[in-house]
Amino acid sequence: MTNQYIQENKERFLSELMDLLKLPSVSADPKFDDDVKATAEFLKNRFSEIGVDRVEIIQTKGHPVVYAEKIIDPNLPTVLVYGHYDVQPADPIELWDSPPFEPVIKKTEIHPEGAIFARGACDDKGQMYMHLKAYEAMLKTDSLHCNAKFIIEGEEEVGSENLETFIAEYKDMLDADVILVSDTGIIANDVPSITSGLRGLSYVEVEVVGPNRDLHSGLYGGAVANPINILADMIASLQDENKHITIPGFYDDVLECSNEERTEMAKAPFSEQAYCEALDIAETDGEKGFSTRERATIRPTLDVNGIWGGYTGEGAKTVLPSKANAKISMRLVPNQDPHKITALFQKHFESIAPDSVKVTVMPHHGGEPALTPIDSLEYKAASLAMEESFGKKPVPVRSGGSIPIISMFEKVLGLKTILLGFGLDSDAIHSPNEHYGLYNFYKGIETIPLFYKHYAAIKKS
Amino acid sequence: MTNQYIQENKERFLSELMDLLKLPSVSADPKFDDDVKATAEFLKNRFSEIGVDRVEIIQTKGHPVVYAEKIIDPNLPTVLVYGHYDVQPADPIELWDSPPFEPVIKKTEIHPEGAIFARGACDDKGQMYMHLKAYEAMLKTDSLHCNAKFIIEGEEEVGSENLETFIAEYKDMLDADVILVSDTGIIANDVPSITSGLRGLSYVEVEVVGPNRDLHSGLYGGAVANPINILADMIASLQDENKHITIPGFYDDVLECSNEERTEMAKAPFSEQAYCEALDIAETDGEKGFSTRERATIRPTLDVNGIWGGYTGEGAKTVLPSKANAKISMRLVPNQDPHKITALFQKHFESIAPDSVKVTVMPHHGGEPALTPIDSLEYKAASLAMEESFGKKPVPVRSGGSIPIISMFEKVLGLKTILLGFGLDSDAIHSPNEHYGLYNFYKGIETIPLFYKHYAAIKKS
Repeated sequence: MTNQYIQENKERFLSELMDLLKLPSVSADPKFDDDVKATAEFLKNRFSEIGVDRVEIIQTKGHPVVYAEKIIDPNLPTVLVYGHYDVQPADPIELWDSPPFEPVIKKTEIHPEGAIFARGACDDKGQMYMHLKAYEAMLKTDSLHCNAKFIIEGEEEVGSENLETFIAEYKDMLDADVILVSDTGIIANDVPSITSGLRGLSYVEVEVVGPNRDLHSGLYGGAVANPINILADMIASLQDENKHITIPGFYDDVLECSNEERTEMAKAPFSEQAYCEALDIAETDGEKGFSTRERATIRPTLDVNGIWGGYTGEGAKTVLPSKANAKISMRLVPNQDPHKITALFQKHFESIAPDSVKVTVMPHHGGEPALTPIDSLEYKAASLAMEESFGKKPVPVRSGGSIPIISMFEKVLGLKTILLGFGLDSDAIHSPNEHYGLYNFYKGIETIPLFYKHYAAIKKS
Repeated sequence: MTNQYIQENKERFLSELMDLLKLPSVSADPKFDDDVKATAEFLKNRFSEIGVDRVEIIQTKGHPVVYAEKIIDPNLPTVLVYGHYDVQPADPIELWDSPPFEPVIKKTEIHPEGAIFARGACDDKGQMYMHLKAYEAMLKTDSLHCNAKFIIEGEEEVGSENLETFIAEYKDMLDADVILVSDTGIIANDVPSITSGLRGLSYVEVEVVGPNRDLHSGLYGGAVANPINILADMIASLQDENKHITIPGFYDDVLECSNEERTEMAKAPFSEQAYCEALDIAETDGEKGFSTRERATIRPTLDVNGIWGGYTGEGAKTVLPSKANAKISMRLVPNQDPHKITALFQKHFESIAPDSVKVTVMPHHGGEPALTPIDSLEYKAASLAMEESFGKKPVPVRSGGSIPIISMFEKVLGLKTILLGFGLDSDAIHSPNEHYGLYNFYKGIETIPLFYKHYAAIKKS
């Protein structure tokens, strides 16, 4: 019945989304501040029309949060939906085939049913709006199995700067059982998947200082330690020949991925050859004992993100430089703690520095890893929902990246998050010609009520 | 008698040098082209006044060479003097205490008898002009023991670009027995020394290319080889734990320094503590089995002169970069051949590259090492000359730097060079307030005739 309602209102749902996409809610640029406000108002009105108990625009130090809720029955579980209504800047605007804030529908090879092209079409207006329409369908067909709360923020694209304060301040109001977010993707339209984990991050900058000034490499070379050579030695020593990280204690807290999850993950289609060809590399490389996808998702890493020192201009200059620097980041997996890892790195890196140089380690920001175990009831409900709507069981996918707000939700609210996203890698989010498949938009609206249904059922049992 | 002549004409010698220093013969800047010409004319006139057989200004594609000669007797040995009349630019001019081309004499702690302050005072007008005045003294006192030829070029400070062509073209005219150059220094006014060797140079630029674009280190980190990490590994592997260079064949042609020369060299005063304090380093570091000075002079080295890759701006960016680059140079010792070493480096560096990246090695310029063995008759003559004028035996010093023209002389003319310089490290050559001690200027004029005398005597015996 819910599904029938969705089918009957498809055109209107799409038309509403197109109106939403016309609003240039670019959070990074103050000249769009009025548009950001207008977008929050637009959403408030849509929530009101659907028939929530309560909807309001709550100010923060930055852009406001749109909050809405409907409590059917305090004894039912509560789903807290998170999304964002702000978008990335549209630059470089000249690379768009159609104006970024004048949405149009075009067919593509991947989206033969058509896709909607506009800034924010996928990230995250299109995915966020699925939740409003799915909720409408549940409510109108009297099949809302859980209470629902919504926080739709306006600062995700500028780092969610005020979100933690907001969450902490409204902690009671936000009381729920699970957080549901559609801001990720599936492997392909015929390969549903659920992001079951995210890596965390420890990021440091290091400086190796040798002599107090740049020296002539002829007159001093061989006798005075060269900070670049030393830095190269130190970086090289951080991984052994199996690409295992050598920092003492680094792996102590790693929660090993279960064989069951590794088996499930391995079911996702993956071509090593296509992967290498797309990157123009002869072969992949990484920690022994793990597959390419595992290395990029369930295993911690150490990458130099930047390095500089000495003479970097044209031609040759025979300098023995005074110092060398690098930016080094470590991707972390559950249950590694970024603060602990940063401290371990710092201690180790300082300890391996030869006496001929001075070494400084400056921590940058970090981020916690996140995990929704595939045997958790949240994951099971999401899996059943997708299996019902797609006709096949979704594959659990660990993302190698980090979404810091997810671990923040867990820390502040004590809740697990389900990343039930419907985008595709090819949707060009953050890039010109961003789009979102109509198939994906409607499939999301169909799947979300099934999550509510299965989640309520599992919670009751 | 020669010495008496020198003492009686000291004031005039100095006055002539001051006139020479007033001419701003900056070879690098075309706006001084007329001054460069005027300086060559000035020297031609001074040579004429002294009474050479022949003096002329010989054009090159750049600034001209002043050539002079006096053949006393074809059966006597011939000394070919090399020097240069061009100077470095005076910038930054605001750091000079007196105008760079208005020479003044001031007393300093190191030069209580006074030093002449001007651009080129030491490098090389002051040192080059000693040869004209020493020659004058020998000729006027009828004690010229060798034939003399002079090539005074005007492009040393811009890389002696046209010198090799000149030397090759006038090879017969330049026929001689030894080349004498005063463009280096002594350890201290009470520690005479002779530069007996120079290091050569092989300089390359390397590039390590991984994926065809910068990648997100979260999504790809761990699975795709990071070119910076790989470059660090490769650089680190070029030296072992004893700082021995691991490139196969690298040491094959190294002419080991004799124990006698090492013993002589070790007699030069040297304070490891003062050396470290001046550089603000806790300790020196280098190849096991050699002293600090030996590491910087008689041993080959490998230094990274520059490195760059990835994100080097403010803050943190989680990029897995597409490529990383470094400039790497090797100082070479007699008899290493720069072309051979560059080829060995290239072959080795390419061979150690993992298949996950592509590596390119681009050779820059190189330079041959040079050596005047301390048991050679040229060195012995110079040593006896200094011992006679300073009252103590000079210490042989190997310089860690490279002077490419010295090996060029040896290659084209087949002659050894004696680096009989009288400058001090503190003379600030190439810097503001360049100066040259009057003690050093006169000591040079006194020592040069003694070299002619001892050289002729040794050759005869």
